[in-house]
Amino acid sequence: MSNNKELEEFDRKVQNLLWLVSDQTIKRMNAPLVVDTKSSSDDLVTNVDQQNERLMRSQLMNIDPSARIVGEEESFRHQLDQNLSGNIWIIDPIDGTLNFVKQRDHFAIMLALYCDGQPTLGYIMDVMNKHLYHAWRGHGAYVDNKRLAKPVDAHLDESLIAINGWQLMKNNFQQQEIARRAAGLRMYGSAGIEIVHVLKGQLGGYTSRLKPWDIAAGRVIAEELGLIVKTIDDQPINVLSSNTVLVATKKVCQDIWQITK
Amino acid sequence: MSNNKELEEFDRKVQNLLWLVSDQTIKRMNAPLVVDTKSSSDDLVTNVDQQNERLMRSQLMNIDPSARIVGEEESFRHQLDQNLSGNIWIIDPIDGTLNFVKQRDHFAIMLALYCDGQPTLGYIMDVMNKHLYHAWRGHGAYVDNKRLAKPVDAHLDESLIAINGWQLMKNNFQQQEIARRAAGLRMYGSAGIEIVHVLKGQLGGYTSRLKPWDIAAGRVIAEELGLIVKTIDDQPINVLSSNTVLVATKKVCQDIWQITK
Repeated sequence: MSNNKELEEFDRKVQNLLWLVSDQTIKRMNAPLVVDTKSSSDDLVTNVDQQNERLMRSQLMNIDPSARIVGEEESFRHQLDQNLSGNIWIIDPIDGTLNFVKQRDHFAIMLALYCDGQPTLGYIMDVMNKHLYHAWRGHGAYVDNKRLAKPVDAHLDESLIAINGWQLMKNNFQQQEIARRAAGLRMYGSAGIEIVHVLKGQLGGYTSRLKPWDIAAGRVIAEELGLIVKTIDDQPINVLSSNTVLVATKKVCQDIWQITK
Repeated sequence: MSNNKELEEFDRKVQNLLWLVSDQTIKRMNAPLVVDTKSSSDDLVTNVDQQNERLMRSQLMNIDPSARIVGEEESFRHQLDQNLSGNIWIIDPIDGTLNFVKQRDHFAIMLALYCDGQPTLGYIMDVMNKHLYHAWRGHGAYVDNKRLAKPVDAHLDESLIAINGWQLMKNNFQQQEIARRAAGLRMYGSAGIEIVHVLKGQLGGYTSRLKPWDIAAGRVIAEELGLIVKTIDDQPINVLSSNTVLVATKKVCQDIWQITK
């Protein structure tokens, strides 16, 4: 388990790494992308996802040699080993790849450190707006190293919320009823970008079915700001599995759980 | 009917006006907003909507004294006179007021000139990103006076599309089936911001139930770029009424009309 001095050193190095990867991503967007599909036609991977993950993995192996590294592009085909002991770095080299390919905007690069299963460091890079959101558990949440204010704890009917489109139409957890009770519905197509809107109080909540790399970083920052990160039906998140995640203010969670339970 | 020299003069003056109104909007966001509701709890108006519209009306009365002016905040309570003769300026002083209030982002200021019912000048100001999109029918479409490229004419299954949340859930025109056939669904909560994404090729289409001021400006710019602006079931738009509008590439329109007709 890392001590504070080590975590401070990790934080400094990892912030530099994320700015480097972000700059390279913008440069590579000027060349044609190589786009491939994974599980389905809307589950894309590009050369940039793969290049970003390789660079992040290789630098993390220097920064924290004994850690385990889980990254979307190398890990998505396998069942993940559920052992949470020690340091685990979780990489999303491009979150919102469909936006990256079709919009060249509204995507993120994310990185998190979990120590013995405990959310510890979290980073969301909003690449096109050039903002780095990050938190160190117990040491505050920041955008570009300026402290983020805790979002106002508003109810669902006063809040805009984001719901993943496929989840909304499947409606397994009454997402359509949740949307009807909210002040309005939004959909940005990237968990990282959607969570950033919750961190800033621009959305009262966000829910989607998410893989570990989609939520690992956002969870650290959200919890540091007093937001709740659980499943849409009020269960704890399983760090290395898929979960139907809800990131929201306390009051939005209460209002949603009354619908889903 | 205005001639080209007059329209060129209008264009210059109106661009200056929109930058002025945009700057004032940003300044006024630093003071507390006075928020009121109109037809329903999610149909908001603020002091800034009203101040913007008053300023735009008074300046337009100097710029084009014989014109008729239709603006959201003065006009929304009345049945609009459907007479299309002469010059009609159509104002949306804040498009996406719910975003303006809850997010302080993702809203637009819009203005259009229709001459004898013909879409002639159109302006969408993306306030927070400080970009002015505009077109003069037959003279090109621009962002910050740089020419916009025509978006690629892609099919629905290759395109991200935006559908208004309430319309999606009502599903009167099989919007859920449209969403399922698209590459992905997005929702930004402002017609102006959503249309800007279509203009830039970041969305293949956008559909919502829209009032005249929500679509008047976007229609001029979209048509100038070869995009289609009709109803979701392939009828012409009625300029001074509400329409369930579809703004999209030709191929996305064809694909959607196969579903809705």
